[in-house]
Amino acid sequence: MSSTPAPQGLLVTAGKVHTPFKTELLSAMGSSRFKDGPPHLVGILATKKDDARTYAEFTKKACEQIGINFELRLVGEARQGLDGEGVGIDVEEAILEANDDSHVHGIMVYYPIYGGRQDQYLQSVVSPQKDVEGLNHQFLFNLYHNIRFISPLTLRPIPSSHLPTPLSKSAQTDDAPEGTVKSILPCTPLAIVKVLEHLGVYNKMLEYGDKARGKVITVINRSEVVGRPLAALLANDGARVISVDIDSIVEFSKRPSLSTTTSKFNPHHITTPLPEFTLAQALSISDVVISAVPVSSYKVPTKDLKDGCVCVNVAGEKNFEADVRERASIYVPSVGMMTIAMLQRNLIRLVGYQDMLKSAGL
Amino acid sequence: MSSTPAPQGLLVTAGKVHTPFKTELLSAMGSSRFKDGPPHLVGILATKKDDARTYAEFTKKACEQIGINFELRLVGEARQGLDGEGVGIDVEEAILEANDDSHVHGIMVYYPIYGGRQDQYLQSVVSPQKDVEGLNHQFLFNLYHNIRFISPLTLRPIPSSHLPTPLSKSAQTDDAPEGTVKSILPCTPLAIVKVLEHLGVYNKMLEYGDKARGKVITVINRSEVVGRPLAALLANDGARVISVDIDSIVEFSKRPSLSTTTSKFNPHHITTPLPEFTLAQALSISDVVISAVPVSSYKVPTKDLKDGCVCVNVAGEKNFEADVRERASIYVPSVGMMTIAMLQRNLIRLVGYQDMLKSAGL
Repeated sequence: MSSTPAPQGLLVTAGKVHTPFKTELLSAMGSSRFKDGPPHLVGILATKKDDARTYAEFTKKACEQIGINFELRLVGEARQGLDGEGVGIDVEEAILEANDDSHVHGIMVYYPIYGGRQDQYLQSVVSPQKDVEGLNHQFLFNLYHNIRFISPLTLRPIPSSHLPTPLSKSAQTDDAPEGTVKSILPCTPLAIVKVLEHLGVYNKMLEYGDKARGKVITVINRSEVVGRPLAALLANDGARVISVDIDSIVEFSKRPSLSTTTSKFNPHHITTPLPEFTLAQALSISDVVISAVPVSSYKVPTKDLKDGCVCVNVAGEKNFEADVRERASIYVPSVGMMTIAMLQRNLIRLVGYQDMLKSAGL
Repeated sequence: MSSTPAPQGLLVTAGKVHTPFKTELLSAMGSSRFKDGPPHLVGILATKKDDARTYAEFTKKACEQIGINFELRLVGEARQGLDGEGVGIDVEEAILEANDDSHVHGIMVYYPIYGGRQDQYLQSVVSPQKDVEGLNHQFLFNLYHNIRFISPLTLRPIPSSHLPTPLSKSAQTDDAPEGTVKSILPCTPLAIVKVLEHLGVYNKMLEYGDKARGKVITVINRSEVVGRPLAALLANDGARVISVDIDSIVEFSKRPSLSTTTSKFNPHHITTPLPEFTLAQALSISDVVISAVPVSSYKVPTKDLKDGCVCVNVAGEKNFEADVRERASIYVPSVGMMTIAMLQRNLIRLVGYQDMLKSAGL
């Protein structure tokens, strides 16, 4: 730096840039479209993090300034301690409720909630019709492909979200009801279910959708590719699943002990945080332990396993110690071959579905 | 452990579980559906990592064993050094090509490629009709919601992917062509574009879709929420963007210097890795520097900035040093207010789109 200071660069605040947009927004708000009432924006806050709450308050104030009706809905962690209601609906259900509510015009979710891939999953749960953040897959795809104009008729929610499993009719069988086909399951979680069926963990005597009832299953890893879909799949089949990841332990269950709310969505698992729980406690009560940690140094301690449990290694490197069979009654060292078989099975199914679409002229 | 060793638990390999599935698969392959030819599975390998290549070879062998036609397509990094073709198409274009190819029945992408959220984005680019891995959002949503049966008619690719921007007609304007509306852009990247328009970085004299031509812009952070969409947006508007993240530097540009292929997709930016490039080099040639690193300790070194550049801070904490205006001709310390304005604008647009859908009876 010289001794005679040069003039500093210009400081431009967002407020300056904002002025013409505020004018434009106020003019839009004054249009006849809104003569019967302003648009209704729902903010969903599911975290206790200060940043998210500050951002939510900032949104509220900015909406009030131009007359947009902003409603903040607190769910999950953000709701805790507010009332005696228990954990209440989770963030995903709050999004689905707002998707389905014709009085809601826009949805704004405050991230990070779970962080990483699970937040990205939630971004695509928001209906593109109400996605004011522009973060669902359809809009990001358009952005990356420089597709600037779209037909409004393409803005449809996830097509399958309105076709719940007809549980009463098909409870005893896994045959698809007429006019429907099976949804495709991710290969690795599906391969693990097939292994557990083979090992007798799934009880054939119990009814379809509940064959893993009574089993406690620890799943180590909660990634969006293996751990979380697997935990959901097992819980949807009746198991009590303890999902363990680096930073938290969560229960997935269709029959949760803590939650007191009933869901109006398709019957499925509920997740409940278990902040007081440790991996050792989880292992001590688990009939089945599945580990999918992609790190060779990670090992499940044999000493913590319940005697006679079933252990399944899903990681490329072994996640169990060499002496695992001292405690485990059954040990499956890898599932790769079954993963490929499920991939092949999915392929053959999809060929059938493609034929149906061709017949329908689509 | 006692001195007389107890009998060890049972070791069950996936091979044992596999037997009935192999029988089922072989029987399906022998059905009349395949009398004119087996199903065709395309594997897309875009990484040099040994694990992915091993898994690809394993898939090939397993497919050959039951008569499935497996074709491995090498793209990007996996292709490098194979021929004189240059970087070729990227993994996303390879997926879109396979989506559109009626001779392809299934698509298997070998992850990790970019890791994390960008891989998750790619999972949803695979058409659900061909997604043998079951990893796209539609299938994961069904899994989490215990939706087991679906109408095959819902298995449609991303609806907007077949409506490219009619560049020739609307090159001079950003008005949506008749029957179309604007796609929704993510608020934060859009807010930054509006700030750059205000600052004169976007040149109004240049044509629509090319107003940032001639500008070199460094974007620090390549997340799926801010950095990558922003880099794509700026590149699609003509800028040469240097996208800097912890582990790599990548150029986003509509007019790449290195790539020699022409794309048959909607004209959009091409990404080119710049493995020899450093952040300091990027800063030394950048007209605009945008930083969005969510870490308070991260600071862009003022000494590396090109004199007279424009600096925009997007992170909650300041990513620029206190003396940034010694070098920068313009400094924008935050864009939060503009982000909210864009969110409000998106809301008002979406209300209009919702009205159109209602009029169409949808």
